[in-house]
Amino acid sequence: MAAGPAVSPMAVPLPHLPPLAGVRLAAGEAGIRYRGRTDLVLIELAAGSGVAGVFTRNRCPGAPVDWCRAALPAGRARALVVNAGNANVFTGRAGAAATRATAQAASALVGCPPRQVFVASTGVIGEVLAHAKLTAALPGLHAALADDGWERAARGIMTTDTFPKAATRTARIGEATVRITGIAKGSGMIAPDMATMLCFVFTDARIPPAVLQRALARGVEASFNRTTVDSDTSTSDTVLLFATGQARHARVPAEGGPMLREWTRALSDLLLDLALQVVRDGEGAQKLVRIDVSGAVSARSAKRIAMAVANSPLVKTAIAGEDANWGRIVMAVGKAGEPADRDRLSVAVGGVWMAREGGVVAGYDEAPVVAHMRGREVNIAVDLGLGAGRASAWTCDLTHGYIDINGSYRS
Amino acid sequence: MAAGPAVSPMAVPLPHLPPLAGVRLAAGEAGIRYRGRTDLVLIELAAGSGVAGVFTRNRCPGAPVDWCRAALPAGRARALVVNAGNANVFTGRAGAAATRATAQAASALVGCPPRQVFVASTGVIGEVLAHAKLTAALPGLHAALADDGWERAARGIMTTDTFPKAATRTARIGEATVRITGIAKGSGMIAPDMATMLCFVFTDARIPPAVLQRALARGVEASFNRTTVDSDTSTSDTVLLFATGQARHARVPAEGGPMLREWTRALSDLLLDLALQVVRDGEGAQKLVRIDVSGAVSARSAKRIAMAVANSPLVKTAIAGEDANWGRIVMAVGKAGEPADRDRLSVAVGGVWMAREGGVVAGYDEAPVVAHMRGREVNIAVDLGLGAGRASAWTCDLTHGYIDINGSYRS
Repeated sequence: MAAGPAVSPMAVPLPHLPPLAGVRLAAGEAGIRYRGRTDLVLIELAAGSGVAGVFTRNRCPGAPVDWCRAALPAGRARALVVNAGNANVFTGRAGAAATRATAQAASALVGCPPRQVFVASTGVIGEVLAHAKLTAALPGLHAALADDGWERAARGIMTTDTFPKAATRTARIGEATVRITGIAKGSGMIAPDMATMLCFVFTDARIPPAVLQRALARGVEASFNRTTVDSDTSTSDTVLLFATGQARHARVPAEGGPMLREWTRALSDLLLDLALQVVRDGEGAQKLVRIDVSGAVSARSAKRIAMAVANSPLVKTAIAGEDANWGRIVMAVGKAGEPADRDRLSVAVGGVWMAREGGVVAGYDEAPVVAHMRGREVNIAVDLGLGAGRASAWTCDLTHGYIDINGSYRS
Repeated sequence: MAAGPAVSPMAVPLPHLPPLAGVRLAAGEAGIRYRGRTDLVLIELAAGSGVAGVFTRNRCPGAPVDWCRAALPAGRARALVVNAGNANVFTGRAGAAATRATAQAASALVGCPPRQVFVASTGVIGEVLAHAKLTAALPGLHAALADDGWERAARGIMTTDTFPKAATRTARIGEATVRITGIAKGSGMIAPDMATMLCFVFTDARIPPAVLQRALARGVEASFNRTTVDSDTSTSDTVLLFATGQARHARVPAEGGPMLREWTRALSDLLLDLALQVVRDGEGAQKLVRIDVSGAVSARSAKRIAMAVANSPLVKTAIAGEDANWGRIVMAVGKAGEPADRDRLSVAVGGVWMAREGGVVAGYDEAPVVAHMRGREVNIAVDLGLGAGRASAWTCDLTHGYIDINGSYRS
């Protein structure tokens, strides 16, 4: 394999990640594909932990996604196994067998039914996963489980990510303070395959399963589902949320409710933090781009317009070229297929309204916009002038680096 | 402006374009944006000519698209004016006024109502079109109208197209032979704006308006609507079909019918020829890619899957890298959101089935596939194994050239 790209210029430092009651972690080298780096992570959860999950909408998912989807309805988890280097996608029956064998090996170590073991894989696709390497390495990882293994776990799930991604928050539930910690990987590549986004979040709160699932789905909708690197959808995207229930707080009612307001907000904030770290590590990315749409006929319409701008190659190449090309933004708004009136539309870059009500702003001074475009973070605002619908989306620029990473022949 | 890119390696030579009864053409230099090249085309049509049109679905179209849409229902055309260098998009009331003034000037020269003049513009957007330059140049063009002006017209509508695009066909209607000739431009760029596709087709047949519109819509659906360069949709895309009615053939019934079978087939064939020329000149394109989908649940589903593959940046960069990466093709099939069964799916490149029924083909020999990928034309086949739905789509690869063209700051 060629040397990986340098660390993203938009990388953020790994935060301090204190222990979280009910979670122990270990990472090791199973030698799946990489040499001399960790590629297997085992995470053990306290007995009684609950789990929620959200998965790729790709119709050709990997075997681990099938496994997790089947395990989810029971709502119980005791372990998570993640390997990097092989995504176990498009591997037919062998793929399903590899996932099952991995889950069985971990369940024997942890002492739980296999269905309480969640599995995720990321890496090359179409190659059978040599799960014997995983099952051989798991006992060593089990022996090494520790409550301070967060950074090792964050690094162990990386593929061609250029920096490890993690975030942590605290929130009050009643009189108690609980913690939420998450790790993620994504938008790095293992030649020759697609970027895959994996995200694992843990809390020591005790949350009823239906509430846990609803909070996760909402949080993902407002974070990962509003970010894009290249509009392609991995076959392995997975977000799992585990609740160990080890914190001592008042009982949360079955419907959740006001008691969870702070926790829910912290969860959403953490998910957005992790989603933006993934975008910051987008393939070849040199700039983080935020698109704020207002004045749409609905929030749903605003989201679709924001994503159309975020996914437009012409907008993204213009940003790479530091060109405040509002014409391409207008084009992208128009192609979303959502209600838009060309003659009411306004566009701003870096807070400067360049185009308003169907034409360029008279006496528009490009200088502050050009200065803004030269920075690492670019803000685009679109006001449709039609209604009260608002939404934001995030992306990165489209650069030669993207072509380099994805257009080089796999070796 | 920077020097344009070299001629596309997939360029095709301009065919011989004989006169077509009822069409006279001229091109000239109006000095709209370019220096030392033609940028204005006037085409006069015989009295009684009919017209059909298909336009961009972008919700923020340019003023000329508004004008043509309003003029179309009357179904009559006497002239077409096309300028390159300024798209007259997002120019508010001034844009509508510029289009009206252009049509009025041409109508006075040709001797027809302004609404029988069709107008198209391509080039930078957001800048007011200095239509006085157009109206000043039109009399000279009118004086120069000639029936052998096809190549000049094909060149006059170019922006950063690297080669002129035209095609011609003949067909029998009853006992008579009629001609269809078309010119197109597209997927070149005028920095800093989007690729725009314009296509103007002419026939000397006499076709009832409703039949003309239906034939054009069907032909476009099977050609331009199945090609993509980068998934972005111009605000100016326009296809117009003019029928001068100068050929002497038996009267075509109002419903068209079998008498037009050959003509309709020739029209569709010509439209696909022009659409593929546009893809061959895609920004930075080094390879023409055809995607054949079979076994889908319906033709509509097959088309959506073919277009999802054609629009996938990860597939297109893999092709640029000459990497027969069937994993990315599987990913793109899955993200289309159409019915697909991972374990029934087969993928071929260059006629070699690499993946079949959910996994890599045993003993798959990559050598012939690698050789195929090195060529200028790459064929991908996907068989979903679900039904009888078939469709094809065409695209080009995604290269550093695309980033160069679209990511360079406009000067």
